Amino acid sequence: MRYLTSGESHGPQLTTIIEGLPAGMPLLEDDINQALARRQKGYGRGRRMQIEKDTVQITGGVRHGYTLGSPVGLVVQNDDWKHWTKIMGQGPLDQDEMDEVKRKISRPRPGHADLNGALKYGHRDMRNVLERSSARETTVRVAAGSVAKKLLSLLGIEVVGHVVEIGGISSNKREYSTLEELRTITEESPVRCLDSEAGQKMMDAIDQAKNNGDSIGGIVEVIVEGMPAGVGSYVHYDRKLDAKLASAIISINAFKGVEFGIGFEAAKKPGSQVHDEIAWNEEEGYYRKTNRLGGLEGGMSTGMPIIVRGVMKPIPTLYKPLESVDIETKEPFTASIERSDSCAVPAAAVVAEHVIAWELAAAIVDQFYADRFDALKNTIEEQRAFAREF
Amino acid sequence: MRYLTSGESHGPQLTTIIEGLPAGMPLLEDDINQALARRQKGYGRGRRMQIEKDTVQITGGVRHGYTLGSPVGLVVQNDDWKHWTKIMGQGPLDQDEMDEVKRKISRPRPGHADLNGALKYGHRDMRNVLERSSARETTVRVAAGSVAKKLLSLLGIEVVGHVVEIGGISSNKREYSTLEELRTITEESPVRCLDSEAGQKMMDAIDQAKNNGDSIGGIVEVIVEGMPAGVGSYVHYDRKLDAKLASAIISINAFKGVEFGIGFEAAKKPGSQVHDEIAWNEEEGYYRKTNRLGGLEGGMSTGMPIIVRGVMKPIPTLYKPLESVDIETKEPFTASIERSDSCAVPAAAVVAEHVIAWELAAAIVDQFYADRFDALKNTIEEQRAFAREF
Amino acid sequence: MRYLTSGESHGPQLTTIIEGLPAGMPLLEDDINQALARRQKGYGRGRRMQIEKDTVQITGGVRHGYTLGSPVGLVVQNDDWKHWTKIMGQGPLDQDEMDEVKRKISRPRPGHADLNGALKYGHRDMRNVLERSSARETTVRVAAGSVAKKLLSLLGIEVVGHVVEIGGISSNKREYSTLEELRTITEESPVRCLDSEAGQKMMDAIDQAKNNGDSIGGIVEVIVEGMPAGVGSYVHYDRKLDAKLASAIISINAFKGVEFGIGFEAAKKPGSQVHDEIAWNEEEGYYRKTNRLGGLEGGMSTGMPIIVRGVMKPIPTLYKPLESVDIETKEPFTASIERSDSCAVPAAAVVAEHVIAWELAAAIVDQFYADRFDALKNTIEEQRAFAREF
Amino acid sequence: MRYLTSGESHGPQLTTIIEGLPAGMPLLEDDINQALARRQKGYGRGRRMQIEKDTVQITGGVRHGYTLGSPVGLVVQNDDWKHWTKIMGQGPLDQDEMDEVKRKISRPRPGHADLNGALKYGHRDMRNVLERSSARETTVRVAAGSVAKKLLSLLGIEVVGHVVEIGGISSNKREYSTLEELRTITEESPVRCLDSEAGQKMMDAIDQAKNNGDSIGGIVEVIVEGMPAGVGSYVHYDRKLDAKLASAIISINAFKGVEFGIGFEAAKKPGSQVHDEIAWNEEEGYYRKTNRLGGLEGGMSTGMPIIVRGVMKPIPTLYKPLESVDIETKEPFTASIERSDSCAVPAAAVVAEHVIAWELAAAIVDQFYADRFDALKNTIEEQRAFAREF
Repeated sequence: MRYLTSGESHGPQLTTIIEGLPAGMPLLEDDINQALARRQKGYGRGRRMQIEKDTVQITGGVRHGYTLGSPVGLVVQNDDWKHWTKIMGQGPLDQDEMDEVKRKISRPRPGHADLNGALKYGHRDMRNVLERSSARETTVRVAAGSVAKKLLSLLGIEVVGHVVEIGGISSNKREYSTLEELRTITEESPVRCLDSEAGQKMMDAIDQAKNNGDSIGGIVEVIVEGMPAGVGSYVHYDRKLDAKLASAIISINAFKGVEFGIGFEAAKKPGSQVHDEIAWNEEEGYYRKTNRLGGLEGGMSTGMPIIVRGVMKPIPTLYKPLESVDIETKEPFTASIERSDSCAVPAAAVVAEHVIAWELAAAIVDQFYADRFDALKNTIEEQRAFAREF
Repeated sequence: MRYLTSGESHGPQLTTIIEGLPAGMPLLEDDINQALARRQKGYGRGRRMQIEKDTVQITGGVRHGYTLGSPVGLVVQNDDWKHWTKIMGQGPLDQDEMDEVKRKISRPRPGHADLNGALKYGHRDMRNVLERSSARETTVRVAAGSVAKKLLSLLGIEVVGHVVEIGGISSNKREYSTLEELRTITEESPVRCLDSEAGQKMMDAIDQAKNNGDSIGGIVEVIVEGMPAGVGSYVHYDRKLDAKLASAIISINAFKGVEFGIGFEAAKKPGSQVHDEIAWNEEEGYYRKTNRLGGLEGGMSTGMPIIVRGVMKPIPTLYKPLESVDIETKEPFTASIERSDSCAVPAAAVVAEHVIAWELAAAIVDQFYADRFDALKNTIEEQRAFAREF
Repeated sequence: MRYLTSGESHGPQLTTIIEGLPAGMPLLEDDINQALARRQKGYGRGRRMQIEKDTVQITGGVRHGYTLGSPVGLVVQNDDWKHWTKIMGQGPLDQDEMDEVKRKISRPRPGHADLNGALKYGHRDMRNVLERSSARETTVRVAAGSVAKKLLSLLGIEVVGHVVEIGGISSNKREYSTLEELRTITEESPVRCLDSEAGQKMMDAIDQAKNNGDSIGGIVEVIVEGMPAGVGSYVHYDRKLDAKLASAIISINAFKGVEFGIGFEAAKKPGSQVHDEIAWNEEEGYYRKTNRLGGLEGGMSTGMPIIVRGVMKPIPTLYKPLESVDIETKEPFTASIERSDSCAVPAAAVVAEHVIAWELAAAIVDQFYADRFDALKNTIEEQRAFAREF
Repeated sequence: MRYLTSGESHGPQLTTIIEGLPAGMPLLEDDINQALARRQKGYGRGRRMQIEKDTVQITGGVRHGYTLGSPVGLVVQNDDWKHWTKIMGQGPLDQDEMDEVKRKISRPRPGHADLNGALKYGHRDMRNVLERSSARETTVRVAAGSVAKKLLSLLGIEVVGHVVEIGGISSNKREYSTLEELRTITEESPVRCLDSEAGQKMMDAIDQAKNNGDSIGGIVEVIVEGMPAGVGSYVHYDRKLDAKLASAIISINAFKGVEFGIGFEAAKKPGSQVHDEIAWNEEEGYYRKTNRLGGLEGGMSTGMPIIVRGVMKPIPTLYKPLESVDIETKEPFTASIERSDSCAVPAAAVVAEHVIAWELAAAIVDQFYADRFDALKNTIEEQRAFAREF
């Protein structure tokens, strides 16, 4: 299973094509639209999130509510495009138009792809970089991930992303009784935090950062329940499931780290307090008494909940500007402000949830027999039974 | 550029085939042997590291000291194989032999791939899992990485791995004047630590863990200097260089987290203290005043040093055993001891160095024109000049 | 460089995303539209070609007439979609709508993907297969190929597809003075044949087949001039350029064979009459005195014209129907008629031209340094000079 | 499933690593050795085939006669290596040794990779090209293919390659009662031809070519019985099974064309005589009344026998030499003779059989659930039953 995306932040649309889905899987535009709406929520977002309400159009691969097995095409229109048809037009401009849109972006913003992208692709107008490097592209990654989440959900696998730290303020409540509870509570929190007290402090910190013309980052966590054991493999380094999940998290704009289970804490504890003892009972088969390793051992799922965390740096677009250099004049300047989000961590939790869902669904589709959705379901059930009775 | 590896821990040999190297690159068996020797050193290793001294044989793709452009074959013999020809033999056994080697491993060790691997591949003798999931395989990953390191080095790109934390003891000295200095000092430290005082405490901690029948993990850091700007890309999520590096680190046995630059600290700081201001001067072109983002922005190298850290959990094979379940009897037992390393972090720093080198070399070979090594060198120099004069 | 396509024959649109193009390459919608128009021409096409005039919209990756380096999105609307919104709608139908569109296709047509596709994906309504297996999808393959052709053309590489046999009637004129001449003459021929006399006979044969309620196939040939030597490689079987071209030709709907240079004739001739002698002169460097091997030796381009031929079977949709079996009743029936083309070979020559162009452009972009179009051009020029002076 | 190969023709060994095989599949070195022996037979081979008897060593991925799920390593030693340790040594030579082996190959042979390879990789000693481009490498491709054939055979899928034309002499007997019969008879024919009379003429033609200092090519055919319907897919061009088979055939050294079923004949016949009518009966389910399309429709297997043919050009190494140019002096010369096979078509039939087997096995392993061999067998059986009862 694979997907490609296309589209610039202020271009006509964002597009994705998903190739390799099973046939016969229920899928509605509404499944995807709910995910897109969740991505647009979150305390600390700026103006654009209010003006654009993303909705998807399925343009291929689905008929009468079911996947066909053929590639699924998804389109999200950029509502704002009508104001950008000249600046971002595909065709060449005549002289008058060129004068109208002539303002080139020659001032790279620290912490963005602007300068590296310009050096790589030879763009002297860095709009040519930022239009694609923008986190706007995560919209279609969420769209693709929501299709994956649907597939997982129909196989009894649930994925929830939430926020565990913003601007140095950590959630103190990390336990939850059911994943459904975690989902419900964090969905209602403007910062997607299970701990309402810490959530309030996070919002205060966001307000304060905004007042300072500054921005703050944070840590998001994704929990997955219901994965069968043995997805991924230890036999070759590029087949390890945790390596794929790590890659997915770091591929999200502004993410600078990822960890599984107790993660970096593992450097401080003796082995006897890190590893999870193995137990067995008749109904469930094998299980771990604890889950410090976050549901992943030997590059494979263990059947325990998968726990992944990623750290997002503060959004680099600041009112309190940083120094940079104009590429035309080579003169220093203080970086311009493109927009006004002061914290994107709650939205990033939704993005992380969806990129993790994608990797898990892709791993499952690649590993099991997945031409027909019902056959996939059977094969997974057989493997679950095999593991239980092993 | 791609590679596959084959071989079990107690099989006849470990093999790797590297496909896609430029032709005309100098390469000697000794380049690789030095890397293999470095992997085998390190305070806290057990008996096997002493008895086996790994050396490589080049079996293809190299002639008279230069690569041919054809796939490079590398073989590392397992010296111990002569004692394992029956237990690990490829051919079927007759009845007598089967009686001789009949002891199946039915007791999965917590923290290893044993149980997941058995559930996945249907192995009731878990030796069939552990022989491949063993960190012994990192020998050939280091071999492949050492070829990549050679390529990078000839392009003026240096990679050094060292240890920054073991068992909760952190190195306090993180600054170094030149990468060469970092390399030299850490090479002489039995724990690959720049801070000799912390290094001593780490060795004490390793001794203590050993005495307790326990094990400890730690954090390794890889520094890369000399990378041209613009390797990797922001245009598609699966082309981001940092995502590939994250995947490489997590694919090392026992690694549970990875971070770049200030990494998880980014969750605690305001944006104004996270992003690196951009400056320019005539000789060097663009540079950053600081390097908090670890040489990576927008999924691309910035030209600043790349800084990656990974956390390794304590080795799960303990004298102080953990509870598990025999898969034949379903009875609980306390897990058996396979070998006696109490800390593998110094060796893991060497492995991390080499898997990072691989990813960088692969990204360079894929991005630039690399049929002939001299053409690759020219293309890179041209791109460096282009960036300097941009 | 890679691309995915999405879209059903009677769905809202066909979409493709092309990932990996250099930045700074000129590209207009009109470049693509000309290719789409050429695909729709050709003696022997039925009604649909007349009613639909395909035009493309670029939805990403291009700005003001130049590629950005980001993925290029292309959309071709299906004009007919307005009549199919219920039958091919993405959303579920209510009872009334279901009654309206209830006619399932339960009768697989021989020679089509209908039955195999149904058995694979579990579709009892074979419209779910035929909508995607239809040659309508070649529209976006041509669109993607036209972008590749543009890239090649800007590098001095030209690709022309023409027809050499239809329904057993062969072109007797195979020589041409310049590729431009071949292009111009075949463009004006309704059957894309260089030999006007044979072309007339081909049209007669098409008419006769139509009158018989039958269909005919043929052989198309693609010629490429200007390829630098050494694209592709002998070092690994999956890097051979001719193998990739063969795969591309066979991937076109209804193609059953492919050959290079003298192709199957090579089985009948002694080696001394098959191989091309090598010569050299000061201006051009090395060249071959003949080109029986069709510009490909050792899985690489030789610098001589590349010559590829593919055979297309007659269109399976016939007025003169073949026997098949209804999958619901298991009763035999004679297969239904979906449309009325009696010969699609001229259009297939255009498709072949474009899939070959894609493979060559992809091989060039992958092999050379291609982040910026001007750098690609330079690298290729340098390699051409290197070969000339070798 | 994937594999890489390494090794030069006169280097120490040929190596392959096969990644992605199911665990628990029976596999013996002898399975592979039989295939290697078959490749070395055949009327028209020169001296080397007599002096070297290839045998394989399994170096990884197999234990006690069963695959482990981990990568399988295979090594074939070059017996001749002892005479080539200096000329083909991996290490640098000292001055004396360099004088001893100084003879560089500066004279490219027409029809070989020599010149293109030199231009690509910058080799002025073309031994650096020919050592890898040699058909010697097909030894390990056959080794890898024999593992695939074993897997197929255990799933009830049989693959047989034979010769249908040599030097313009065609087999007149193309019908056979069972695949076993085809296998047995062609195995005993020195030219692998079912028609003993034509076989005798082929041998005469080989003798005559040899006497003329010339060489001849031919056409091989591979037949596959037992494939389940629906392997491959029409949904995306790069998933079509026939396209993969075409690529595999053309990737064999010296192959210039490939066709399926009636192949190029399809250009001459009306559609009503090309397509295969569909029928059904209770025991078998759906089948075709004829098999002109060679078991492949819509890029998928139909369940009917797969029929693929490939054309091999005459071996370019001739006693009757062709003109070429010395790359050092730029003087014309008549090409040197490296060895003395006058016809390699019978061996090529074995190679073709094995590369086809590889592609089919890889397609099956990728499509179905294949972690454990018994699970793969079940999934395939379930799919066969599904198709039968559809």
